[in-house]
Amino acid sequence: MEKNIVLIKGDGIGPEIVDEALKVLDKVCEKYGHTFRYTRILMGGESIDEYGVPLTDEALDTAKAADAVLLGSVGGPKWDDLPGHLRPEKGLLAIRKGLGLFANVRPAYLYPELKAACPLRDEIIGDGFDMVVMRELTGGLYFGARETVEQDGQMVAKDTLTYSEEEIRRIAVKGFDIARKRRNKVISVDKANVLDSSRLWRKVVHEVAASYPDVECVDMLVDNCAMQLVKDPKQFDVILTENMFGDILSDEASMVTGSIGMLSSASLNETKFGLYEPSHGSAPDIAGMDLANPIATILSAAMMLRYSFDLDQEADAIENAVKQVLADGYRTGDIMSDGCKQVGCKEMGDLIAERV
Amino acid sequence: MEKNIVLIKGDGIGPEIVDEALKVLDKVCEKYGHTFRYTRILMGGESIDEYGVPLTDEALDTAKAADAVLLGSVGGPKWDDLPGHLRPEKGLLAIRKGLGLFANVRPAYLYPELKAACPLRDEIIGDGFDMVVMRELTGGLYFGARETVEQDGQMVAKDTLTYSEEEIRRIAVKGFDIARKRRNKVISVDKANVLDSSRLWRKVVHEVAASYPDVECVDMLVDNCAMQLVKDPKQFDVILTENMFGDILSDEASMVTGSIGMLSSASLNETKFGLYEPSHGSAPDIAGMDLANPIATILSAAMMLRYSFDLDQEADAIENAVKQVLADGYRTGDIMSDGCKQVGCKEMGDLIAERV
Ligand SMILES: CC(C)[C@H](C(=O)O)[C@@H](O)C(=O)O
Ligand SMILES: CC(C)[C@H](C(=O)O)[C@@H](O)C(=O)O
Repeated sequence: MEKNIVLIKGDGIGPEIVDEALKVLDKVCEKYGHTFRYTRILMGGESIDEYGVPLTDEALDTAKAADAVLLGSVGGPKWDDLPGHLRPEKGLLAIRKGLGLFANVRPAYLYPELKAACPLRDEIIGDGFDMVVMRELTGGLYFGARETVEQDGQMVAKDTLTYSEEEIRRIAVKGFDIARKRRNKVISVDKANVLDSSRLWRKVVHEVAASYPDVECVDMLVDNCAMQLVKDPKQFDVILTENMFGDILSDEASMVTGSIGMLSSASLNETKFGLYEPSHGSAPDIAGMDLANPIATILSAAMMLRYSFDLDQEADAIENAVKQVLADGYRTGDIMSDGCKQVGCKEMGDLIAERV
Repeated sequence: MEKNIVLIKGDGIGPEIVDEALKVLDKVCEKYGHTFRYTRILMGGESIDEYGVPLTDEALDTAKAADAVLLGSVGGPKWDDLPGHLRPEKGLLAIRKGLGLFANVRPAYLYPELKAACPLRDEIIGDGFDMVVMRELTGGLYFGARETVEQDGQMVAKDTLTYSEEEIRRIAVKGFDIARKRRNKVISVDKANVLDSSRLWRKVVHEVAASYPDVECVDMLVDNCAMQLVKDPKQFDVILTENMFGDILSDEASMVTGSIGMLSSASLNETKFGLYEPSHGSAPDIAGMDLANPIATILSAAMMLRYSFDLDQEADAIENAVKQVLADGYRTGDIMSDGCKQVGCKEMGDLIAERV
């Protein structure tokens, strides 16, 4: 198989973690006889430094023409004082919108070997938990009209949270589809006791649910969900929610696993195209020190093979290699525990590539 | 001292927990020579059943004329199928707005005796944590314009998130004031990398912070805050945030303590007036069974004495009585652990009243 992949190494630890993912992808190509062609584009801080903007139109067009995008991470203190529209995050928002990536899939899974890193008590962890947050990514408060105006002698700021039936339906369908491949349970999260957009959300989700009689569908209020993630994460399979609630809850869910350095994510549109990136940030404090955990990025590459290229066997090979490396006792600093062997970013990449 | 208190017993376990708080308040009056006059009004489900609406204008006027309101809890499955504007929660939103209660203070404190109920590991709990969420309560998405309209053949729903400088300033001032009485640290939570309202929030909070050089002020993004509450709750003293983020984060913070049945809350306006209620819900499943934990409501009554009546000594007496009861090993079912004596709602009220 031949595929064109756009690489965004990004800022902070971005370049080093993407390099390890490439090492693993090279091994996959060698073993399974595929050809992946890579084109690098700049985004976030690196693009600001080079072009003065967080994402150029050319870079976006290059991404559009590819089969998938693999991203490290963007942002850092260096660019924190720039005005809003020139900040690294704007690149991320622009590429999501520009590529129509409305479905953000964030698994939050507790690796049995990493139980010790989980902040929750053993009684709550039980046999572990395994959920996916399906977050709407191109609507809601993130992309609604906003303005800050003077009114009666003071400034007033306004953001709008808008959803159409169609925007809700397409993400709900993705959520139910993924639940079918998992444990057939969707918990749809909203604030229907307050928001019009949540009441429409709930109505459309129920309509979609009617076409999936094999999938259980439960409504949960967002405040309750924030509690339940801490109280009993085992109850969740697929969490389906809008953009801002998804931002908050997916981060909470990642932290509840205790090993955010292991968590990948995919942002998808209606086609097979996707953007794949680790759930964690750019960790500027450890950038370039060979200390970063490349596993989330390596697993994001595995998601790319599975979702965008339908290469399930190859994706399995990567995921199993990661499990094997953990079983063999290798850990980067962020997930280190007694009796394990601590390795750097590069060595972790080597160890996983070897096991593919 | 003579005070007029409006009581809203409400739905579910509301009546039984308010009755225990009254028992404790009676003891305070007897011991310290005060006279509290009570007027009952209906709100939520009980008001819907009686008057067809969740809060009548007369009830609101009665509340306005009082010195403080003590509330049990509202809502339950019985009223879940009513249209939005007739649901019990609307009573709560209407009384908040009607009384101008813009500052919601929700302490989340880990009682050393209840460590076992905390879902977090002992290493994370350490010596315990003690924070307060200061949530803006009458602005933002809760009270902005909203509409659901047909557009190009489909329904589109819109909510608006609006904040003025003045709305932000008055809650920030409350946040910094309370930090001064605590550990002098405010963490202001927003989503300034996306929202205009958050950028204005941040600007005004920084302006207010300048008048409190003795209070440390840190900005935190809402997604990060949802993670930090699980990862390291000890870092928080006062969390200052807008309405919707506060709804989510205050519930997460309560759950992180593991003993939501112990947590009180106050909703305040510019005057000494306040509405006091437990942080937990109406628990319809155990209503009327003498199983509810009345402590959150009893502690809400203590907050009322402290914030609205300046009766610090009396508030201390109640809080110490609660600590004493826990130290003596008495627990309601929700916080029961090995070696303790389990008691019902009424007995818990008696035990605390005795110790005042
Ligand atoms: C950087 C920021 C704009 C972004 C978001 O809020 O979506 C990030 O938190 C994420 O979740 O990918
Ligand atoms: C009942 C509901 C409208 C309310 C809110 O969202 O404010 C509740 O969750 C709370 O936090 O008091």
